[in-house]
Amino acid sequence: MSNSKTDSTAVDVVIFGGAGDLALRKLLPALYRAHREHSLSNDCRIVAVCRTAEEVDSYLSGVERSLETFLCSTECTSADWDSFRQRIIPLALDIVNVAEGWSALTKVLAQREQAERIFYMAIPPSLYGVCCENLSTQKLISARSRVVLEKPIGYDGETANAVNDKVGEFFAERAIFRIDHYLGKETVQNLLALRFANVLFEHMWDAKSIDHVQISISESVGLEGRESFYDGAGAMRDMVQNHLLQLLCLIAMESPHKLNEKNIRAEKLKVMESLRPITAADVKNDIVRGQYVSGNIKGELVPGYLEELGQPSSNTETFVAIRAHVDNWRWAGVPFYLRTGKRLQERTAEIVIQFKDVSHKVYSPEQGPMTANRLIIRLQPRESIQLVMMTKNLEKTELELQPVALNLNFADTYKDLKSDAYKRLLLDVIADNPSLFIHRNEVDQAWNWVDPIIAAWSCPEGMHALQPELYRAGSWGPQQADQLLAQDGRAWINPADDLCEKKPVPLAS
Amino acid sequence: MSNSKTDSTAVDVVIFGGAGDLALRKLLPALYRAHREHSLSNDCRIVAVCRTAEEVDSYLSGVERSLETFLCSTECTSADWDSFRQRIIPLALDIVNVAEGWSALTKVLAQREQAERIFYMAIPPSLYGVCCENLSTQKLISARSRVVLEKPIGYDGETANAVNDKVGEFFAERAIFRIDHYLGKETVQNLLALRFANVLFEHMWDAKSIDHVQISISESVGLEGRESFYDGAGAMRDMVQNHLLQLLCLIAMESPHKLNEKNIRAEKLKVMESLRPITAADVKNDIVRGQYVSGNIKGELVPGYLEELGQPSSNTETFVAIRAHVDNWRWAGVPFYLRTGKRLQERTAEIVIQFKDVSHKVYSPEQGPMTANRLIIRLQPRESIQLVMMTKNLEKTELELQPVALNLNFADTYKDLKSDAYKRLLLDVIADNPSLFIHRNEVDQAWNWVDPIIAAWSCPEGMHALQPELYRAGSWGPQQADQLLAQDGRAWINPADDLCEKKPVPLAS
Repeated sequence: MSNSKTDSTAVDVVIFGGAGDLALRKLLPALYRAHREHSLSNDCRIVAVCRTAEEVDSYLSGVERSLETFLCSTECTSADWDSFRQRIIPLALDIVNVAEGWSALTKVLAQREQAERIFYMAIPPSLYGVCCENLSTQKLISARSRVVLEKPIGYDGETANAVNDKVGEFFAERAIFRIDHYLGKETVQNLLALRFANVLFEHMWDAKSIDHVQISISESVGLEGRESFYDGAGAMRDMVQNHLLQLLCLIAMESPHKLNEKNIRAEKLKVMESLRPITAADVKNDIVRGQYVSGNIKGELVPGYLEELGQPSSNTETFVAIRAHVDNWRWAGVPFYLRTGKRLQERTAEIVIQFKDVSHKVYSPEQGPMTANRLIIRLQPRESIQLVMMTKNLEKTELELQPVALNLNFADTYKDLKSDAYKRLLLDVIADNPSLFIHRNEVDQAWNWVDPIIAAWSCPEGMHALQPELYRAGSWGPQQADQLLAQDGRAWINPADDLCEKKPVPLAS
Repeated sequence: MSNSKTDSTAVDVVIFGGAGDLALRKLLPALYRAHREHSLSNDCRIVAVCRTAEEVDSYLSGVERSLETFLCSTECTSADWDSFRQRIIPLALDIVNVAEGWSALTKVLAQREQAERIFYMAIPPSLYGVCCENLSTQKLISARSRVVLEKPIGYDGETANAVNDKVGEFFAERAIFRIDHYLGKETVQNLLALRFANVLFEHMWDAKSIDHVQISISESVGLEGRESFYDGAGAMRDMVQNHLLQLLCLIAMESPHKLNEKNIRAEKLKVMESLRPITAADVKNDIVRGQYVSGNIKGELVPGYLEELGQPSSNTETFVAIRAHVDNWRWAGVPFYLRTGKRLQERTAEIVIQFKDVSHKVYSPEQGPMTANRLIIRLQPRESIQLVMMTKNLEKTELELQPVALNLNFADTYKDLKSDAYKRLLLDVIADNPSLFIHRNEVDQAWNWVDPIIAAWSCPEGMHALQPELYRAGSWGPQQADQLLAQDGRAWINPADDLCEKKPVPLAS
């Protein structure tokens, strides 16, 4: 295969939290896929750091079970597993205590002084600092080492700074890979290709042609055992500060000189800096906070947030909808509507670029309803990019228009395509390509925008803290979120309103 | 069905040349299809004017055989044929002599004084005048009568004027339907919908975004028994003056206020008037004439033009390639390359809108060759509209671009779609909708542009008549036609260079 890495340098991928949920559900399956397609060097080892000797003993059988659970059956062959398992070295240590097991890690890594080292922090962010410090005291951070950080980094600008400062004591910024798995989606890559390699979109990507942008990430699950973390965070910190703002930056960024990591990050940062601050006075106008109550998810009654939390009250938002603006020439007057929430009707992540109407309607209303062009980038559950265009209804002799959705992603064209954001991003870390990872400046700037909003919720001028609006589990969020767009003469586009068909078919009108 | 016409007025469709090639191959099959889909009024009769009593006797069996030959087997059912044949009234008359059989026609039409009458001239243009005159003297032209004229109308501006004047003595311009079957293609209709109902194309349809336009109509056949007509005409009169210029007008026309017949024709006429005249001095630079010699069509040696003609010499062009310009604001600096010929490699009719490159290439050349966006409208052999765009190659982890062709025509979406330009146009005549028919002003203006070119060929200043360049049958025309575009740094896009696949697939790079 053309992307074979079998001849390149030795790499040790050290996963802290190796027996944790993220490692077993995402990281090991992604590495296994990379192994199967020969994208991993023969000299790539996977050091899985567990907490106890028991975890170590059952580790390989646990990984095997996990691959069988989370991968397609066609991907799991005993030959591939037999070769993949040779790469895995499970060991136990106590992250906070260098006396407990760190010598085993030192011994393993010492076998290959020249190997590149990747330290993946699949552990709570509170442990990032101490883990890095212990790596340093054990002299395990070589010049060719990199560290991968998962969100959430901090709870606000100040705490994020503290984490970044601490990690920065031991790793140069260039060696710190802050991961956002949405950015590893193939559709996000394809979005950049569409934007920057097609004059059709080059000429259309601005306020002259685009009416507004919607970015929605909805979850149908509730707290999933994350009560203590989530109630202290809320949707703004958990989703908007990172995922939604990152996607907004990729949509809104200017074309860089070259598409390299330095330029992409610089352009994204410029977007973050251009985000119009939402002042305390505007918070009520431009943002809707929500919290779910019991409701119906796929025919089943599910409890409300308070019931899940087991508390009599909480001011935490499980939903947020925002009218944001990017204050620069390209985007003047174009609202970016952001929306995310738990216990919504469907799990989906979707970006809608709504183009303007044609300048003048030459077709009469009887010739069919006019739908403005729309580009829909769906990141999950099934990645797709669709362009909605008006065409003639070919079933009629008389001229009648109808909207049709074009598939721009072409996943159907590729057999055996396994889109896997973590695989892609792990291979980028191994290849030392940080383009799709988040620079510290971006984290800082995102908190700069988010912090005052959260502060305004907590203590509006001379009033009580702002209570979230209630919404039924299984709905699309509180009614006020619909009003937010209705005020502008617009409406949210939910997945049911568009298409996820494989091939072009007429839209229901 | 929604487009049922079973309740509307009585119509008599009178086909002069009823037993001729055009009637049997195109008109009767089209009317049969309209009948099958209930688009014809129950009171619609088809009066087939033959030349002899023998033709009348065998007429119905001839039509039946013709339907079986030219339609799909699924379309030919005995039930449909049994009901369709009831509509057909064959009769014989001598077009030039009112004493010979015209009373039969008078008698048939007199049965229904109030019926709308459509006189279809499927006869040589030299007979149009006398036929109309005899219709008039027999008092068969009612206030609700229309006449349909086939090309060629005239041999140059003067003779076209004479035909149009003569027909105009008996029919008002509004009742004269000059047919160009290319304009009845569904793709042409869809092209208008794409242009005028999508802001994506509204903003891209001008010299800022479009590099150039190519319009090619190629035939693989030779003279097919039309020697005497063709050698006196040539490709310029036979194809460019009508079909190619009509397609050019639809591509280049401004958006009308409303898409009705008056406005469409007015906008097309403006384009004709904006065509930059090709002066005698420019003819050699901007036009290539060609004539085929013997060559290979699909593995078979076919004779050259002179052999087919049976003459030792001829100056007639069987191929022409033109660099044309539309001198208005929208199209300043955008060449329209026109090309048509006989005995070319494939039978095809295709319009290519070549968009410009992106302003600046942010992807490096190693990330894949950049192809500028391209819209390909194919009228035959299989109608399709494709948009060529750049996307990411999803088979590669590394970013690699590749061009992909999107199908914008959606014919696959529609089961049982029978695209039939003649059916569409005949139904338009019956519905008295002249939008897709050619106004006399357009004919005049087209000859105004063509006549001086032909004159310059015949007698270049102080020199012998311009000889056509030779090309092999089965090629894409003379080498000089390639040079015409190569001078501008461009190349013809032949069908083999693009795609006619049903669904989006990556283009060969």
